[in-house]
Amino acid sequence: MNTPQNSPENSLIRKIRGIAARSAESRSGLELGIGDDAALFVPRSGYQTILTCDWFLEGTHFLRDQHPAVSVGWKSLVRAASDIAAMGGTPRCFLLSLALPTELTGRWLTEFLGGMQRASRKLHCVMAGGDTTRQSKALIHVAVVGEVKSGHAIIRSGARPGDMIYVSGRLGEADLGLAALRKSRALVRRDDPILRKHLYPEPRIDLGRWLSDHRLATAMMDLSDGLSTDLARLCEASKVGAHIDATNLPTVRGLKRGNAKSRTTRTVDPLALALNGGDDYELLFTVARAKTRRIPRTLHGVPLTAIGEITKSPRLILEHPTGGSQLLPAAGWDPFR
Amino acid sequence: MNTPQNSPENSLIRKIRGIAARSAESRSGLELGIGDDAALFVPRSGYQTILTCDWFLEGTHFLRDQHPAVSVGWKSLVRAASDIAAMGGTPRCFLLSLALPTELTGRWLTEFLGGMQRASRKLHCVMAGGDTTRQSKALIHVAVVGEVKSGHAIIRSGARPGDMIYVSGRLGEADLGLAALRKSRALVRRDDPILRKHLYPEPRIDLGRWLSDHRLATAMMDLSDGLSTDLARLCEASKVGAHIDATNLPTVRGLKRGNAKSRTTRTVDPLALALNGGDDYELLFTVARAKTRRIPRTLHGVPLTAIGEITKSPRLILEHPTGGSQLLPAAGWDPFR
Repeated sequence: MNTPQNSPENSLIRKIRGIAARSAESRSGLELGIGDDAALFVPRSGYQTILTCDWFLEGTHFLRDQHPAVSVGWKSLVRAASDIAAMGGTPRCFLLSLALPTELTGRWLTEFLGGMQRASRKLHCVMAGGDTTRQSKALIHVAVVGEVKSGHAIIRSGARPGDMIYVSGRLGEADLGLAALRKSRALVRRDDPILRKHLYPEPRIDLGRWLSDHRLATAMMDLSDGLSTDLARLCEASKVGAHIDATNLPTVRGLKRGNAKSRTTRTVDPLALALNGGDDYELLFTVARAKTRRIPRTLHGVPLTAIGEITKSPRLILEHPTGGSQLLPAAGWDPFR
Repeated sequence: MNTPQNSPENSLIRKIRGIAARSAESRSGLELGIGDDAALFVPRSGYQTILTCDWFLEGTHFLRDQHPAVSVGWKSLVRAASDIAAMGGTPRCFLLSLALPTELTGRWLTEFLGGMQRASRKLHCVMAGGDTTRQSKALIHVAVVGEVKSGHAIIRSGARPGDMIYVSGRLGEADLGLAALRKSRALVRRDDPILRKHLYPEPRIDLGRWLSDHRLATAMMDLSDGLSTDLARLCEASKVGAHIDATNLPTVRGLKRGNAKSRTTRTVDPLALALNGGDDYELLFTVARAKTRRIPRTLHGVPLTAIGEITKSPRLILEHPTGGSQLLPAAGWDPFR
């Protein structure tokens, strides 16, 4: 008798369910997880629910032959959780949807789930359910549910002229790692330091929540597509412009500035990396002048850097380290360009 | 200046945002929708949040050359909302993730969004956000957030020996439509009556909520993969078995019973269609004996039919109309089989 419990799909679900069970915590608010038609989540009183989701597709967001499966698992959860951080919220649980070719349902899936479980534990964000099917390429979709105190969410549209613009961390490290990975043309080492930020980005949950709890930011978003593209989105939402001082950008270390001419790719120019490199998952936020003294240089070891100022004129201006200024074109990631 | 508002991705997002704005309603609980890092949803006090999601992939769940785009839009939302109905809940909002080839971002997308908007209005379930990217095939993922009164959710594991087993509607109509579509080998008419259930299934939200409000069902799930497969899942979750009387199954009309031998495909046998046909999105539920008199023959025009009984023995037994009985094999949809 071919009972469902012995079917190929159900054995896949059992494997996935394994990480859900181990990552469950009573404080997650999850009452019913994988195994029913849907999951049941108990929202906390006085909190709003935050909903976000992200694709993570083979060939578009990762390469099966080059990206370690453990990084694919880590990153597919982390990048969706980063959107929760960008609202000043806390991730609580997630839905994992997987469409896999049969040849990836063995060791690859085990390693993928291992990376995802590490991220799940680190973020205290438990798996609540999802959907599985078969495809010729690996398709991953993660939807994250988070929470923020009512009225405390930090959105993109609150920036006002005169606000200072900040970023967390260093910009361009992930893109530098991607360039190194592209050169290697093979499965990369899971622990190569230059690839760390590209393979295992850290969402800035604590920073986002700290800014939200203390009502310090007027607007915020995460940097997923590159500063030049994402800052333009924040400015458009807030109906303002920005003046960025290139000298102040926290660029990657260990590379000389402005040596783009001597190399064949833009990706080794630290300034271009900082402006256009995607996948950093740092936070971009604006702070009213009167509150800037409350922003420390680092928070829990993460540098916070003032990079410019919000302007009334709706243009993005970049002031160069060599003097002179220019309009800043949006040259970050756009899948349809 | 290549501002993001003029980028190809942003023009796609604007098109999608169009249906979000028109489908928004104050009672949805949505405070912040598309356009920020994430959506903000205000959960109702005294309710639990229901989370579910579904793939809808070109080549697996629909065929670009045969399925009207308006049906793809309708069905991709409806099938996820059906999981909310299956818990006795009410859908509130959803996240739409689209990965599309460039050639589908014109008329196809407009029709797709039109079908989705119709479903959104009918279900009072508004679009809250999502993610877009490019792919060579159309990939759709819908995550739905719903609500149910705390303690009222109906799950799969509550069936007890002696409970009567019910289904809503007629079983196999969607699979009959799929068989007709497969024979046509071309784009089908949007309004072909034999295809109605396959192209535009109706989730049983009102029925699910009625059963939940009145605490009439001990267990429930929706029929997405076929009765033989889904009933086995319900029985497994409840650690029980079932005895089904084939005579009582609400099969499709207009076809003679038991004429499988005279045809080349199983899909024209009404009994096989009812047992193994997927995609009906009817509800399968169990009711304690003492409460069965409160189950009407129809609810809001939808027939409710008692088809058998839950048994202590964990086997699924099918009693044939011609007499005799057999073990019922799970022969519904399994993407990995």
